[in-house]
Amino acid sequence: MNTGYVHGYSAAEARRLDDQADVLAELLHSGTEFAPGSRVLEVGCGVGAQTVRLAGARPGVRIVAVDSSADSLALARERVAAQLPGARVEWLQADLHRLPFPEGSFDHLFICFVLEHLPDPLAALTALRPLLRPGGSVTVIEGDHGSAFFHPDSHYARAAIGHQIRLQSAHGGDALIGRRLRPLLGAAGFREVVVTPRTVYADDGHPALAEGFTRNTFTAMVESIGAEALAAGLTTAADWERGIADLRRTAEAGGTFHYTFFKAEAVA
Amino acid sequence: MNTGYVHGYSAAEARRLDDQADVLAELLHSGTEFAPGSRVLEVGCGVGAQTVRLAGARPGVRIVAVDSSADSLALARERVAAQLPGARVEWLQADLHRLPFPEGSFDHLFICFVLEHLPDPLAALTALRPLLRPGGSVTVIEGDHGSAFFHPDSHYARAAIGHQIRLQSAHGGDALIGRRLRPLLGAAGFREVVVTPRTVYADDGHPALAEGFTRNTFTAMVESIGAEALAAGLTTAADWERGIADLRRTAEAGGTFHYTFFKAEAVA
Repeated sequence: MNTGYVHGYSAAEARRLDDQADVLAELLHSGTEFAPGSRVLEVGCGVGAQTVRLAGARPGVRIVAVDSSADSLALARERVAAQLPGARVEWLQADLHRLPFPEGSFDHLFICFVLEHLPDPLAALTALRPLLRPGGSVTVIEGDHGSAFFHPDSHYARAAIGHQIRLQSAHGGDALIGRRLRPLLGAAGFREVVVTPRTVYADDGHPALAEGFTRNTFTAMVESIGAEALAAGLTTAADWERGIADLRRTAEAGGTFHYTFFKAEAVA
Repeated sequence: MNTGYVHGYSAAEARRLDDQADVLAELLHSGTEFAPGSRVLEVGCGVGAQTVRLAGARPGVRIVAVDSSADSLALARERVAAQLPGARVEWLQADLHRLPFPEGSFDHLFICFVLEHLPDPLAALTALRPLLRPGGSVTVIEGDHGSAFFHPDSHYARAAIGHQIRLQSAHGGDALIGRRLRPLLGAAGFREVVVTPRTVYADDGHPALAEGFTRNTFTAMVESIGAEALAAGLTTAADWERGIADLRRTAEAGGTFHYTFFKAEAVA
């Protein structure tokens, strides 16, 4: 089944995105501030994992959250209603390339873990830029699976990550997009592009991070594409299971895990 | 020729180490402070690239700088004499596994870009730990070539880095040691081990870093093993040159480069 979203839409996937958001919130959101009253467009809000952060940290902000999936939007809406009953969030199911807003409608664009899934992220950024008022700003956050390395090292674990990268690519995405944020934003016409790496390093001195990120976020994300990798003939059940077991091992005593997210900020 | 040091001992190599030290000084040294009067042992001082930082930033500190190479020590001594005429540095040519100091001689151990070259880094750390007084501390800084990724991506550039990793391994070293610092220090009996990633990210918004690190440090380091990689039959002249050209390309307009060093601090 090709859902157009490599990770699928299961309840387990929704929990994975929750874990990811909790553990990474400080790392990814620090430094991003919106003035009270700002009108913020969140593009590709998914199940709302980032939306609750945006709305919770900046109570005076008006958020429009867009996603192409009605199911995801329903989950996002439930989440925000439960966690932030008074939050001002408008929800819209739409294609991010053809959003029904006049030029200059927003002060800020927020795009997190979205470009990695798009066949043409440059076209998306180019279509979105005019929605910002002159001087408005954009925040883009993406990972880069080329940044994943770990101890104990494992051929099987590296191969499992490689299969995830390949399948995401087959779906039209790019799991290595973090390194390209600056050239992409520049090509889309944004100015004053500043990209900062946000590095996650977990070892047994950081058990919550090893559990929350290495195991429940990264390893779970790779694990979620197992059936598809097997169906595509990329691996065998034995090799796949060993790869996942070796990834899990890096979150145990004596293990270490490294991953870098990239956060880009720029002006329209 | 197997000098025991994969990068060799040329004047170009000494300049490379200078560039590296200048660009990275703040990134690597921030957070490391020694009290005035501290007795610091620098193990594997090489040509003194880090020694001048240690001595310059902490004028009241007494440094003993050890290296196994008389040629490197002569260069290091010259450098410190020229840049810091009043610095208190003692120089010693010795094998770091058999240093002629009584137990508890030092308040601090400083080890930078050394363990990556040792066949048995655990034995080295185990031999060095007793030289610290009880409660004395160690700083270890190492890279990890598994952290190198870049845009535009290039099979040839990745292969060139792979050859460097393989040759360093053939010399008994480990260019992927950064991810292992915490388990190594723990196994050697150090306590309160804290490892922090120190990530270098260079794009055309950071031209000095792209020039100083991507080109003059990392690419130059890989380039320095070209003759050996060819002699060992790991690559062809054409592929090698393309790999180096592609690495250099990542320091030009639109290119990006990522690398993570690891800094470990621990108590004896």
